[in-house]
Amino acid sequence: MRSPEHKRETSRENSPEGLLSSTPYQYSTMLRFAVIGHKAVTTSDFSLNDMPGGAGRMDILCRCLNASFFLSHDLRRNTECILILKGGEQADPASTITLRFSGEKIKSLNPDERSGGALIKKALVTIPEEEYQRAAPGIFIRKSGLAQLLEDYPFAVLDENGEDIRTAEILPENYILSDHLNFTEEELELIKDLPKYSVGPRILHADHTITVILNEFDRRGEQA
Amino acid sequence: MRSPEHKRETSRENSPEGLLSSTPYQYSTMLRFAVIGHKAVTTSDFSLNDMPGGAGRMDILCRCLNASFFLSHDLRRNTECILILKGGEQADPASTITLRFSGEKIKSLNPDERSGGALIKKALVTIPEEEYQRAAPGIFIRKSGLAQLLEDYPFAVLDENGEDIRTAEILPENYILSDHLNFTEEELELIKDLPKYSVGPRILHADHTITVILNEFDRRGEQA
Repeated sequence: MRSPEHKRETSRENSPEGLLSSTPYQYSTMLRFAVIGHKAVTTSDFSLNDMPGGAGRMDILCRCLNASFFLSHDLRRNTECILILKGGEQADPASTITLRFSGEKIKSLNPDERSGGALIKKALVTIPEEEYQRAAPGIFIRKSGLAQLLEDYPFAVLDENGEDIRTAEILPENYILSDHLNFTEEELELIKDLPKYSVGPRILHADHTITVILNEFDRRGEQA
Repeated sequence: MRSPEHKRETSRENSPEGLLSSTPYQYSTMLRFAVIGHKAVTTSDFSLNDMPGGAGRMDILCRCLNASFFLSHDLRRNTECILILKGGEQADPASTITLRFSGEKIKSLNPDERSGGALIKKALVTIPEEEYQRAAPGIFIRKSGLAQLLEDYPFAVLDENGEDIRTAEILPENYILSDHLNFTEEELELIKDLPKYSVGPRILHADHTITVILNEFDRRGEQA
């Protein structure tokens, strides 16, 4: 296992295309996983004891935090996990919130779901504005959702009919995933021209998908 | 994605060696992931609100249940997850408990950690005996731990210096993993002659390891 120090030594900027050549892969490239929580609540008053129910499947988003950051006795510092909280079908789209978690600076995150949920609750206390604000160490909050996010970075989408990440010569650095619900018509319209990738023959939960993608990056890094 | 019905059609017995040729891989082969919970409590009186603490990192075992069974809107029916609850260093080895979860028959398991924890609590109400007893649908409980389990099936061990699961011509069906702690000296003595496999260049959490192994099986199945 390489040390975090080793990773830092190979630092370079993200490529402008958001694409990453498989040889050589640099550990320090920032990878981003954005997960749409269609029913996830946008206020901090949810219960950690009922994240699948009252919090709108917040448990899924907590597992995506875990998958994005945890190694055995280490954190992935070159990963960001971006959670889009939409508050359910009845919610005003203007109330959608984006939370950005940066592996480089995040603190107090433990692997269990409640720990991720507690950080989400803490972040949601900060009143969001148009631009990202720091809500806690390594956690940033802003208004807006998918449309705005797509202007920040060139994203790819997970799709069972997409190109296999194992055989793709270049891998995207930024991925959009959905929670337990399919992308909405509106979301599909926004992502319809994005490149599509697959992690294998079966459709996996979002967090499992992140784990498989990071394993592919780990392997490409080791080959460099 | 293949349907569960399709998997059933290709049913066959496990090979006596516990090894599975990569071509063709049959979905109906039973895969087993056994996870040692070194500090995991052996009684049902733990709190679902404190699984990382008071329950002895029971959260890790709950995530291993999730990784073993969940597909998007489906369960993996050809997987078993076996949890060895050791109760901590001070516990009497005779009080170690083995819980066996069968994907084929399990009910009431949701993806969140609390759901897995609730099933573990429910199972631990049944007083264990020498032989497996049914504690709930698809859940079986018995006394004893790793030594007994190794007599049941031919296991392999995850080890960073082991053979890469991607390039291995044959994959084992049964894997031993550890929680956040290394294998003890006594456990190492028991597993020292077992074949060793690796999931890549970085050491992953037990549940992420299960996800990566199952992705490899999924891919080999699709090639069949």
